[in-house]
Amino acid sequence: MKKFSEWFHNILEEAELIDSRYPIKGMSVWLPRGFQIRKYALKALQELLDKDHEEVLFPMLIPESELAKEAIHVKGFEDEVYWVTKGGKRDLNEQLALRPTSETSMYPMFSLWVRSHMDLPIKVYQTVNTFRYETKHTRPLIRVREITTFNETHTVHATEEEAEEEVKTGIEIYKTFFDELGIPYSISKRPEWDKFPGSKYTMAFDMIMPDGKTLQIGTVHNLGTTFAKTFDIEFENDEGEHEYAHQTCYGLSDRVIAALISAHGDEKGLQLPPVVAPEQVVIVPIIFKENQDVVLNFTDNLEKLLKSNGIRVRQDKRDMRPGKKYYEWEKRGVPLRIEVGPRDIENKSIVLIRRDTGNKEFIDYDENTIADVVRDTLDNITEDMKVSANKFQEEKTYSVENLEQVKKTINKKGGIVTFNWCGDTDCGKDMEEKFDIDVLGTQEADVSGPCLNCGKEAHYKALISKTY
Amino acid sequence: MKKFSEWFHNILEEAELIDSRYPIKGMSVWLPRGFQIRKYALKALQELLDKDHEEVLFPMLIPESELAKEAIHVKGFEDEVYWVTKGGKRDLNEQLALRPTSETSMYPMFSLWVRSHMDLPIKVYQTVNTFRYETKHTRPLIRVREITTFNETHTVHATEEEAEEEVKTGIEIYKTFFDELGIPYSISKRPEWDKFPGSKYTMAFDMIMPDGKTLQIGTVHNLGTTFAKTFDIEFENDEGEHEYAHQTCYGLSDRVIAALISAHGDEKGLQLPPVVAPEQVVIVPIIFKENQDVVLNFTDNLEKLLKSNGIRVRQDKRDMRPGKKYYEWEKRGVPLRIEVGPRDIENKSIVLIRRDTGNKEFIDYDENTIADVVRDTLDNITEDMKVSANKFQEEKTYSVENLEQVKKTINKKGGIVTFNWCGDTDCGKDMEEKFDIDVLGTQEADVSGPCLNCGKEAHYKALISKTY
Repeated sequence: MKKFSEWFHNILEEAELIDSRYPIKGMSVWLPRGFQIRKYALKALQELLDKDHEEVLFPMLIPESELAKEAIHVKGFEDEVYWVTKGGKRDLNEQLALRPTSETSMYPMFSLWVRSHMDLPIKVYQTVNTFRYETKHTRPLIRVREITTFNETHTVHATEEEAEEEVKTGIEIYKTFFDELGIPYSISKRPEWDKFPGSKYTMAFDMIMPDGKTLQIGTVHNLGTTFAKTFDIEFENDEGEHEYAHQTCYGLSDRVIAALISAHGDEKGLQLPPVVAPEQVVIVPIIFKENQDVVLNFTDNLEKLLKSNGIRVRQDKRDMRPGKKYYEWEKRGVPLRIEVGPRDIENKSIVLIRRDTGNKEFIDYDENTIADVVRDTLDNITEDMKVSANKFQEEKTYSVENLEQVKKTINKKGGIVTFNWCGDTDCGKDMEEKFDIDVLGTQEADVSGPCLNCGKEAHYKALISKTY
Repeated sequence: MKKFSEWFHNILEEAELIDSRYPIKGMSVWLPRGFQIRKYALKALQELLDKDHEEVLFPMLIPESELAKEAIHVKGFEDEVYWVTKGGKRDLNEQLALRPTSETSMYPMFSLWVRSHMDLPIKVYQTVNTFRYETKHTRPLIRVREITTFNETHTVHATEEEAEEEVKTGIEIYKTFFDELGIPYSISKRPEWDKFPGSKYTMAFDMIMPDGKTLQIGTVHNLGTTFAKTFDIEFENDEGEHEYAHQTCYGLSDRVIAALISAHGDEKGLQLPPVVAPEQVVIVPIIFKENQDVVLNFTDNLEKLLKSNGIRVRQDKRDMRPGKKYYEWEKRGVPLRIEVGPRDIENKSIVLIRRDTGNKEFIDYDENTIADVVRDTLDNITEDMKVSANKFQEEKTYSVENLEQVKKTINKKGGIVTFNWCGDTDCGKDMEEKFDIDVLGTQEADVSGPCLNCGKEAHYKALISKTY
């Protein structure tokens, strides 16, 4: 997959996921197949969030006066906010922002909701569209002007400890979610100059894309009391004193789908983990005129049987060469194909072909066990896809010992390069400029000796890479 | 329920559905309980649509040049479109509309998708937010500036007959959906001057609200070839000739939830049909200190049992008076309450209390049948709620014989008044002004004699009412 960028662009069209010909730059249409993948991914995420969070929905427009309240925050977004200035033919009294993210939409309401510690914690999330007036080169799902799928969780707590605990919860939820989708990640604490505007600190998930650049796929922010102070989110504690609440927020976007596609796709096309596949299994009956009824009778039964066991299955009876069907379903990424011909039925056997390994397995056919066999195979596919994608991320993560290696590795191999670092902003920015990379962030590690760049004492393991 | 308007406003807050204190007029927040009701309603609708339609998602912004293409259409919306004119600090080259509805967002893409009759039909739907710059008095869920829940179906067909057929399909889907929710409706063909801008004709669903005014809760439009001609949606037929496609679209909004609340609510609060209730059953253990373990052991088992049978159940173990709990859950509209006290357990019996009738039923408790009993009771509640709501709509629909009655009925009784009508625009507009009502539309009927208003020959049954 040499030209990843071209491959990515083509697969969106060929696997019928996204139509990017919409007449506004950076905005695209979710086609039915793409929409379904998005839907199943969201479902998996929501099941995790629903255990301890409630779903809500806030308005899309934000008054300028609210957006402007938190100065550091607005500074981070002011260059990319779309503004509504007219209603009908009239100028509005106050211009309204299309939400770039929802802190300033939610927190004025939180201020009304929180009176005493009895009102805490608040743990809510929503899945909405958000907008960024991107001036850089746009790319579907990766750098867009309408983020059609922004899943954002916002929490409010009485104590700093609880907020810290929620950061951990958020990280655990995202880890589980990415693991289910077989999306590999490296977690680090973003450097000071790249944290979420207004936050105390930002934890981020990055995936190494096939071209060696990293894609930020999720972030978890501890907001401290900054927004609580700005939006007056305060409560009365047990002693009757007023305290500011501690907040967190964390989010995922369309990029999860980009990561999913990129982590698993190959020259043949898409590869979908079963959890998000619109069809987990496709049955292709091998039909000859003389045996048509026998075969279709068999495959119809098989289809019904799998369906009644909760497996998403589709039978492809179209009148065309089997080879052409295989090609199509492989391109669309269906994890498992079942072929059944007249000879197989005679032998009481069917053939399972895995999309991920290409493995062909002849299975003795038994109505009582076939659903379990298929389910086990799908589980194996899920596991193997995860292992394989994680392997790539690990192999592309290089620990280096000197500055020369940093430069060489980044330029020749791409991926993430890690080394001992002091953690100072000046030193970090110096590296970013010198090597034309980004400091993804730091990981706590047992580090000793000097910073690889400036020679001062090292405190962290730094992660750097070229980024999307 | 004398002051319906006040009742409606209060119930949104008291049943924790919507917070309308958001700092932009006409835009509100869906609270967790409201969001769940919305979610289950959408689920029921999508199950119906998914049988023969595919879900998609189009961008929210529409270039002015696309919105302006269809002249009649844009004229219907131009006074209420919100315009984005700035990105960051820059003026945009072309201003962008927040979609008021999605024809002009979708149809330029349909034009790319349709080449031959093999590409037809297209049957897609989406659930999105849309925007109207309302200058009239706004009201949550009923007249809003952000319609947060716009479910719109769009179809493209090769022939007029197929489009006609799809109109019928749309009507059937909405009928089934409203029936499931126990929302009553009258269907009529909107008069020429009130049809969807750009359509051939509009079929509409209206519900009579408790105050006697009608609320439009769904519309189905036959678009003919008007938009196909404007947006170049044409295909090559079998003979290799180019033909314009025939289109339909139909939609529902947040008003479905307003209708749901209004059709069933009473002085005690909300009443939810089981299909949309976040909790279909609430279990209230009646606890005394000495028997606490016995009771809770029993109710925990009961909760598990119902849950494992797919019933949405919640147990309320809070340390407060049972009466207070009843009051709360009645206000929130939970369809069925189960009370269990120590004496009941001794008697191997439990008590079911229906929210709709207030009926108290003592049931012999049998682990093997209890889930079926509860499910049957929920089904009965669904059916009875529908019958009761339909009865109100029927009783409030008056067939009248002369003009004096029209006026008297509308002013004294509200509801829908029906009578023989010519169908002429001038006559209809004359009535609307004279009686301060709206002509909802016409129904085909075996009509003879003169038009009640102008005396010309009558062709239709007219439906008129005061409207929201």
